[in-house]
Amino acid sequence: MSLIVQKFGGSSVADAESIKRVAKRIVDTRKAGNDVVVVVSAMGDSTDELLDLAHEVAPIPAPRELDMLLTAGERISMALLAMAIKSMGYDALSFTGSQAGMITDARHGSARIVDVTPGRIRDALDGGAVAIVAGFQGFNRDTMDITTLGRGGSDTTAVALAAALAADICEIYTDVDGVFTADPRVVPQARKLDRISSEEMLELAAGGAKVLYIRAVEYARRHGVTLHVRSSFNNNQGTIVYNTEFVDPNGEIVEEPIIAGIAADLSEAKITVVGVPDVPGKAAQIFKIVAGANANVDMIVQNVSGVATGVTDISFTLPKSEGQQTLTALTNDKELVGFSSLQYDDQIGKLTLVGGGMRTNTGVSAKLFEALFLAGINIEMISTSEIRISVVTRADTIQEALRVVHTAFGLDTDDEAVVHGGTGR
Amino acid sequence: MSLIVQKFGGSSVADAESIKRVAKRIVDTRKAGNDVVVVVSAMGDSTDELLDLAHEVAPIPAPRELDMLLTAGERISMALLAMAIKSMGYDALSFTGSQAGMITDARHGSARIVDVTPGRIRDALDGGAVAIVAGFQGFNRDTMDITTLGRGGSDTTAVALAAALAADICEIYTDVDGVFTADPRVVPQARKLDRISSEEMLELAAGGAKVLYIRAVEYARRHGVTLHVRSSFNNNQGTIVYNTEFVDPNGEIVEEPIIAGIAADLSEAKITVVGVPDVPGKAAQIFKIVAGANANVDMIVQNVSGVATGVTDISFTLPKSEGQQTLTALTNDKELVGFSSLQYDDQIGKLTLVGGGMRTNTGVSAKLFEALFLAGINIEMISTSEIRISVVTRADTIQEALRVVHTAFGLDTDDEAVVHGGTGR
Repeated sequence: MSLIVQKFGGSSVADAESIKRVAKRIVDTRKAGNDVVVVVSAMGDSTDELLDLAHEVAPIPAPRELDMLLTAGERISMALLAMAIKSMGYDALSFTGSQAGMITDARHGSARIVDVTPGRIRDALDGGAVAIVAGFQGFNRDTMDITTLGRGGSDTTAVALAAALAADICEIYTDVDGVFTADPRVVPQARKLDRISSEEMLELAAGGAKVLYIRAVEYARRHGVTLHVRSSFNNNQGTIVYNTEFVDPNGEIVEEPIIAGIAADLSEAKITVVGVPDVPGKAAQIFKIVAGANANVDMIVQNVSGVATGVTDISFTLPKSEGQQTLTALTNDKELVGFSSLQYDDQIGKLTLVGGGMRTNTGVSAKLFEALFLAGINIEMISTSEIRISVVTRADTIQEALRVVHTAFGLDTDDEAVVHGGTGR
Repeated sequence: MSLIVQKFGGSSVADAESIKRVAKRIVDTRKAGNDVVVVVSAMGDSTDELLDLAHEVAPIPAPRELDMLLTAGERISMALLAMAIKSMGYDALSFTGSQAGMITDARHGSARIVDVTPGRIRDALDGGAVAIVAGFQGFNRDTMDITTLGRGGSDTTAVALAAALAADICEIYTDVDGVFTADPRVVPQARKLDRISSEEMLELAAGGAKVLYIRAVEYARRHGVTLHVRSSFNNNQGTIVYNTEFVDPNGEIVEEPIIAGIAADLSEAKITVVGVPDVPGKAAQIFKIVAGANANVDMIVQNVSGVATGVTDISFTLPKSEGQQTLTALTNDKELVGFSSLQYDDQIGKLTLVGGGMRTNTGVSAKLFEALFLAGINIEMISTSEIRISVVTRADTIQEALRVVHTAFGLDTDDEAVVHGGTGR
């Protein structure tokens, strides 16, 4: 008998029919002799609808009250799911984040988990019930208030519960068959991966892959939780996200591929600080200002200094949503830094290749650059880590870049993936 | 400085605009220097929508999960109300039934309040905030589960909090201007009452008046809470429901009127047990069977026994919703009781006159019967208490009966009442 944590996103429980289908799947897992803990998101678009209501009554909703409001969403889906399972003749009990022991700090809207005390979940399992837990929500012990974990919070809830309960596996149900070599909506020849290391998964997620949230993968990696990303629309085997090494059915350790997958990201913008005096400490000064504006810098490139002029340019990328506040902060300190002007470019795209095998294989960059060159796509910035290469191109070339690089690295398959609509949280 | 509890029903917070209007009213009360505790129902029809969803996923939803589901409704309205107040520059904090200390027994769907421990509400008030509390919901200490109080639960929450906090008054906001001498939708000449005793209010509610729930009035009476029933659509003075005696501004005790109001009820049916052997103990036997079917009997009439036949008929009224189960139970024991047949009549209406002054005034029944006789309306059953007379007539004559009796007792006014749509819970 295994203990399985199953997480279902909003698109999997969007209406009564979907809820009954998910209930059936949970009952099947239970029938097979497993203990089951289910983490569920709010139904379909209900979170966005609640957010809209909040903004109708208050221009800037109070964070404590916004958390109180949004947590109503999972309360609805989890109760419906529990009653659907019970009406199929299997015991089920729903629990709020607070009842499930998801203890967090007090940062409303983006709380961090500080402790997980799933006593009531353990009792429910011992009593033979399926435990249904609200994703995304927690409880702060000092303020006695309800908190939420922010976007992707339900994945994090599932992983944290799996870790605290020492579950055998944490299944993340989604609207695709698993993790793909590239987004199958852009690259129809993308291939589903049977397995990927959590390190590779982290780099892909950081590179823009939407299938899992970085935070949940990080948590899983830190606590040794094995994930199984799979579709809620069929019973196909999905993608295993493993932590140490992957052992095949014959007991052989399977080597990591050179390239596991490719991700694209259109959510970033580039700021170029023009005419920075080429003296020590200027870069530190600039990025201290940027950090003060609460911006999350991704890639940084400093041009070779012009010897004649004594000035240089520094470019960096950051989320578009943080662009304005960063420009304002830099402009305020223009005199102090002594740069001549700022350029803002939100028409960039980032392409990221990830593969654990890069560590021991050379020539990956060369093959990447050649593929892009042959397609006439210009590279504007480059950044690398041990198992990753990212390049910045024009935004309107990013889909074409994804396809040609996917082909160049031999990742194409003949089978087209089936993609369902909707995203969870 | 007074402590005021204000209760707003679902129709008062049906959408963003209504919520902002209610927030404005609360802020006005706070500005006037009062401490304010607000009890709020779920928005508009949202409870019914959640119930519909529940029945779509489960034919008979599990009671614990149904309570978990329905309590999402007030969570939404209370959080929105709190953020609307905060955005007007006044502090506000929302609390679930559990956080507000509404401790109940474990009867899901119809829990009774066993204790009220409003420590966090007191703290919020001491800190200068308006406390917004979810109506209708509570918490059981033994099971650690969320409960609901059943229909009218939000009124009960408001009264129970007013009692526990020793509030100066409990204001019940509704879609009419107060308690009327009769339903103004049926009797346009109905007059708003400035005051009514809780005893009279109880009898009117039991007689079918919808403005307040019996349970909340009972609780207010038992704990000495003064209610003020008023409209959320204007600032008019409503109706004071007082407990001991009403003292006017000159310090004079005001006498109770002979007739305070008239109520009509079309929700009952009549069952007649025909041919019951006229021997001692048969009535007891019949009503033991009826009680066993969980029916709430209202009026009972036993015909004069036929000396020649040795049999009699027994009629009683009960809620239509309990008719079928009662007929089945009686039929099952037909041999045992020895009656000959059952008649079921769901086309009856009940008219109830209420007035504390009846105690010391004669001739009320005579005037009632004459008014109905002159209008050609037949009386089928009669029941009386110290301050009430109820008669059963045909259902299709009940509105006419209400109007002629209202006129006969001199209750008509020239001003027509303004009635807004919707009902709360």
